[in-house]
Amino acid sequence: MSDKEKAMQQWMKEVNVDVTCLQSKANVFYFSDFYTDPHERLVALFLFQDETQIPLMVCPSMEVNQARDTGFKGEVIGYHDHEDPWQLVKKAIESRGIGVKKVGVEKQEMSLARAEQLSEVFAGVDIVRADEQVHALRKVKSENEIDALRKAAKLADYGVQIGIESLELGKTEVEVLADIEAALKKKNVVGMSFSTMVLFGEKTSDPHGNPGNRRLQRGDFVLFDLGVIIDGYCSDITRTVVYGEANEKQREVYETVLRAQNETLARCQAGTQIGELDKTARKLIEGAGYGQYFPHRIGHGLGIDVHEAPSMHEHNKETLVDGMAFTIEPGIYHPEIGGVRIEDDVVIENGNAVCLTNFPKELQIINESD
Amino acid sequence: MSDKEKAMQQWMKEVNVDVTCLQSKANVFYFSDFYTDPHERLVALFLFQDETQIPLMVCPSMEVNQARDTGFKGEVIGYHDHEDPWQLVKKAIESRGIGVKKVGVEKQEMSLARAEQLSEVFAGVDIVRADEQVHALRKVKSENEIDALRKAAKLADYGVQIGIESLELGKTEVEVLADIEAALKKKNVVGMSFSTMVLFGEKTSDPHGNPGNRRLQRGDFVLFDLGVIIDGYCSDITRTVVYGEANEKQREVYETVLRAQNETLARCQAGTQIGELDKTARKLIEGAGYGQYFPHRIGHGLGIDVHEAPSMHEHNKETLVDGMAFTIEPGIYHPEIGGVRIEDDVVIENGNAVCLTNFPKELQIINESD
Repeated sequence: MSDKEKAMQQWMKEVNVDVTCLQSKANVFYFSDFYTDPHERLVALFLFQDETQIPLMVCPSMEVNQARDTGFKGEVIGYHDHEDPWQLVKKAIESRGIGVKKVGVEKQEMSLARAEQLSEVFAGVDIVRADEQVHALRKVKSENEIDALRKAAKLADYGVQIGIESLELGKTEVEVLADIEAALKKKNVVGMSFSTMVLFGEKTSDPHGNPGNRRLQRGDFVLFDLGVIIDGYCSDITRTVVYGEANEKQREVYETVLRAQNETLARCQAGTQIGELDKTARKLIEGAGYGQYFPHRIGHGLGIDVHEAPSMHEHNKETLVDGMAFTIEPGIYHPEIGGVRIEDDVVIENGNAVCLTNFPKELQIINESD
Repeated sequence: MSDKEKAMQQWMKEVNVDVTCLQSKANVFYFSDFYTDPHERLVALFLFQDETQIPLMVCPSMEVNQARDTGFKGEVIGYHDHEDPWQLVKKAIESRGIGVKKVGVEKQEMSLARAEQLSEVFAGVDIVRADEQVHALRKVKSENEIDALRKAAKLADYGVQIGIESLELGKTEVEVLADIEAALKKKNVVGMSFSTMVLFGEKTSDPHGNPGNRRLQRGDFVLFDLGVIIDGYCSDITRTVVYGEANEKQREVYETVLRAQNETLARCQAGTQIGELDKTARKLIEGAGYGQYFPHRIGHGLGIDVHEAPSMHEHNKETLVDGMAFTIEPGIYHPEIGGVRIEDDVVIENGNAVCLTNFPKELQIINESD
């Protein structure tokens, strides 16, 4: 039995939960190594308090072989599209002689409809929150997980490099985006962590802008935000460069963001309160007069999900510990000057921050003849 | 007010629901034209029974401008990462003087955690299911929606063509996949409907296989399953070809699937029961002795979500009506012979089926010298 399963059993014993039902893609993968996107179909993993019981997985029948191929050691039951998987689960659990009075679920991930199905199948069952328990485990990465994050980060660096090399006067955002993703696919990257962002000029003023047909002009900020999934783990990098020439205001905004990022990174070590990191960056950006243009938190946890625990916002009182992986990504998005964000993936090892992404951060003015 | 909003108000009146809360990406887009992926952050749209009340949207403050830029006519309230959006919603609704006793939600899409937040904010509120109501509207596409589906389908055809042209002895699945996606990106495709599938040889035996480093060999089945998102609407095509030469068994399996697809398509017209479509294909495939190797339903509804209502399974007693859009995709996945799936996107117009995807379907043997 894995340490993760043992930790869950320990928790189930403490709170008297009979079984934990996990059905988010990320948690199923975390506990079973089975990485699948079943769309609206149910794939669920059941972990039992009783350590003599192996885990139970239910998945579409056409995925049963894949689930087993991952090396998953539990019981796997498949269902066809016309069958009710919850009834099969009920039967499988009853046939083990397990009474189900209290079930732990991912309340943030389980739909109300599924929760109601669970309540119907196990009449009178008490449904309790297992989210924090699972997050607490996932938040602290193992060596293997950090290796995957490192590989993913390295390819994110590469993606930015390709993006910069692809810049040409008059080229569109989506053309540059296509070059980045094609190059990554050739390195065997199958999935991106999220929709790749390439924004030019005034488009950078929107922290959540969408790449389109805006063509590259001299003097544009160019913002790349991208990440890849490797062995189930995500990377997430942002770099901003200027094409042709930078004006004074652009330099000032860039240097402010870079200073905020560097000062925040310097504070990343075991024992630091997470909220302090956000406050460090925010104070510096406010001091430079750009406070209102930094509308988001300093970062987010990073792992199987590109956004996961811990949330790096100013009110988070948790402290950093070894194994935590997260982003540090201050930004300023000014309606006239444009937007700058600088984002790195960080992991705490031996008490200190190690940056997994390493693409250079000094302001780069991309030469038009390059 | 849009016809969609009116239909929702009519329903809310009938069942005495004060407000409907929609927070899935697809439904927010459907009712507001605001297409966003807020990850774990809340973006929600509130529609009111009272027709004098404009819709209310809550979203991260950094997305407020984007939401307004879509032309959304309702009220938009933004929140920062450290704020509780549910409290802001409560305040906004109370300030309109609206009492909230009964709320409609997407039970299939709303997490148990959010449902509990809703229950806390509006103490004693009755939460009822609005899923079917929303699906009933989304299931029947407008002319504009069909136009978007048609554009997306055309680019799916193009993706298959590029994939076939990219085939070369010794090339890997992911290399071919990269060529397809790069070509689509150059046509301004920003998002794929789902992870593109390119499978060679024995890998095709798995209906949900993952592309990897399998290299193309003479005699391989090559299966492409891909789709793109255009103007918020998805396409989804599958074609299977053979590289070099096809053996008798491969031909038999291919012709069986093609016949099943053609017979099913011939039955797609207004008034046909959906379950009959699945049964038509299943009967033919069973008759050919491959019944056990067709483990999935005949298709799925298609629209903003690549899988949406109606589910085209054998027990669905709904009948087809004008405006319904869906896939027809029989398949046989044989452990020794390999797998074949042929999938088209179909819409019912003037009572008849119109295929939106039109890539040729006769068995193609791709010449090695091509």
